[in-house]
Amino acid sequence: MAIVLFTDFGSRDLYLGQVKAVLARDAPGVAVIDLLNDAPAFNVSAAAHLLASLVPTFPQGSVFLSVVDPGVGGAREPVALRAQGYRFVGPDNGLLSVFAARAAFPEAYRIAWKPEGLSSSFHGRDLFAPVAARIEMDSVPQGWLVPLERLSVGFGAGDLAEIIYVDHYGNAMTGLRAEAVRRDAVLIANGSQIKHAPIFSAVPPGAVFWYPNSQGLIEIAVNQGNAAADLQLEIGEPVRWVD
Amino acid sequence: MAIVLFTDFGSRDLYLGQVKAVLARDAPGVAVIDLLNDAPAFNVSAAAHLLASLVPTFPQGSVFLSVVDPGVGGAREPVALRAQGYRFVGPDNGLLSVFAARAAFPEAYRIAWKPEGLSSSFHGRDLFAPVAARIEMDSVPQGWLVPLERLSVGFGAGDLAEIIYVDHYGNAMTGLRAEAVRRDAVLIANGSQIKHAPIFSAVPPGAVFWYPNSQGLIEIAVNQGNAAADLQLEIGEPVRWVD
Amino acid sequence: MAIVLFTDFGSRDLYLGQVKAVLARDAPGVAVIDLLNDAPAFNVSAAAHLLASLVPTFPQGSVFLSVVDPGVGGAREPVALRAQGYRFVGPDNGLLSVFAARAAFPEAYRIAWKPEGLSSSFHGRDLFAPVAARIEMDSVPQGWLVPLERLSVGFGAGDLAEIIYVDHYGNAMTGLRAEAVRRDAVLIANGSQIKHAPIFSAVPPGAVFWYPNSQGLIEIAVNQGNAAADLQLEIGEPVRWVD
Repeated sequence: MAIVLFTDFGSRDLYLGQVKAVLARDAPGVAVIDLLNDAPAFNVSAAAHLLASLVPTFPQGSVFLSVVDPGVGGAREPVALRAQGYRFVGPDNGLLSVFAARAAFPEAYRIAWKPEGLSSSFHGRDLFAPVAARIEMDSVPQGWLVPLERLSVGFGAGDLAEIIYVDHYGNAMTGLRAEAVRRDAVLIANGSQIKHAPIFSAVPPGAVFWYPNSQGLIEIAVNQGNAAADLQLEIGEPVRWVD
Repeated sequence: MAIVLFTDFGSRDLYLGQVKAVLARDAPGVAVIDLLNDAPAFNVSAAAHLLASLVPTFPQGSVFLSVVDPGVGGAREPVALRAQGYRFVGPDNGLLSVFAARAAFPEAYRIAWKPEGLSSSFHGRDLFAPVAARIEMDSVPQGWLVPLERLSVGFGAGDLAEIIYVDHYGNAMTGLRAEAVRRDAVLIANGSQIKHAPIFSAVPPGAVFWYPNSQGLIEIAVNQGNAAADLQLEIGEPVRWVD
Repeated sequence: MAIVLFTDFGSRDLYLGQVKAVLARDAPGVAVIDLLNDAPAFNVSAAAHLLASLVPTFPQGSVFLSVVDPGVGGAREPVALRAQGYRFVGPDNGLLSVFAARAAFPEAYRIAWKPEGLSSSFHGRDLFAPVAARIEMDSVPQGWLVPLERLSVGFGAGDLAEIIYVDHYGNAMTGLRAEAVRRDAVLIANGSQIKHAPIFSAVPPGAVFWYPNSQGLIEIAVNQGNAAADLQLEIGEPVRWVD
């Protein structure tokens, strides 16, 4: 299996390499896959819905090192989660809660272990990476994980009727899962009315449409164009639909 | 050997990790090298010339997962190519055609296999990655690849007298191969006249020059400066030279 | 161990993949970790102080392929360094000198080997990568490394009272090590007076503070905000403090 990174540490920045050095030390030879390291930094609910949509594109058994953590160094606890055959570590701030709420029989744990020399600002390197490595290696020392009744922050199992991600092409993903919306529904975002099309090449260049994307989310796009720029869509923008 | 990624999926975005999960599943233990994931998204001929210049910097046997594919989900076919000891998968939209046209005895194949659950928008993950993995492992199932007479879109073997790439320093690469241009030629791009110098440190800081770059292409640069910004050069800008 | 990349080659650009192809060929199976590939391109002293702060976050034995090299193709020599159990290759332009000056008994070497077909502009791929691979494999051929009395450019062992890095959150790192500054000192940068706080969550959202970061450097930050934008801080901006 692999350790999968879903963080806001920045794909260009100097933090990921430090995390990977810990993973190479504690889980040598294990594949480490960068899923997203520019996750929405201050919008934990958007990140939680995005993560929940992406997990099923990975094989069961994968360990997600998941850190979007504006409260690092504060009171929130570090947690681990097992759900639907996947494993997770991350802050108990809601980030893991959407996937957990949609799963049957999720098991949550508080990470009770504290490393010597824990920095106040970089738990991804000092705390989450060593725990993720041991979970992947099936070698978590006794006492490191303490069962929890439930996660302390929960966003629920439902959809999020907002823009939750804008990709580098300008496609704007919503937190609406594709099965929730009928094909003849009209989506409304920032005052624009948007109709369904099956795929980019089904509409003329420059035309806006929505379609069920490859993660199973409703996505707003423009054929050979930038939907987020054209419609002025940002993460957090509400969306709704009319049948 | 390795699987080499040359795509427009975005180095910061959430698509590459999904592709790499498929490669880790289907070609476990094989090295995956990111060559370029911010290839020109809507300029397939520029991308084709750039790819052709980069392939020889990799060892023969490498498998290039090559996707710049604005027509995904439309009528273009997925293809594989063997040429000069290298292997490729990608869309049949011209992207592989420049390398193929310059090679002796290129062999092209249509990818006849269609995965269950093929998404309409992410063939890189669902179709090209599984095929690239099997080509690298020398385990392509019978019937997956059907010989083609030739690729259906071809940009030819010649040079492209345009800017085809701007790097993060602002150096502007042309589609002209170094052997095509005499050292005393003057290059003309967007109204500027540019003379040859052997290397950055041969001209004063801030001075513009052209030189044969480490990929064998004519490149326009400024010593300790940004040529693309200074001369307002973008991908697609025509260049010419006078001897 | 691993080969660690600290360069200005650009995390999104087409240079790193070419370097990694050489490393995969010459040190097959060795882990390659991207530490930072957007290091300050034209500020070698800032890059040198940043590198010195980051090395100890990696295990001893790591080999740092370190290239910030605006003078490539000119007169500067390529060098290797062994210090504190770490190994380095890079240009002899000061980049390795801060770590060397702080180490006991650093050993410097001139790289005497010149590859056939050395490009004038891409020594990272053609020269430094093959040497780094052989150092990691403990298989450096006789004659490749020639002992030097000392590096020819040295920035010294002291701190650098400047901004040396701005991360993607906008946190501004200084070249001041945390032990140099008392907790009640007031930092002054670009006219702003900045007080200490232990961590982000100890101040209100939007408030600026300084704290010792996870690399042991004094860093200027804003809780849930962008310090570099708010205070207009760039790499090279002087900082000072008053007790």
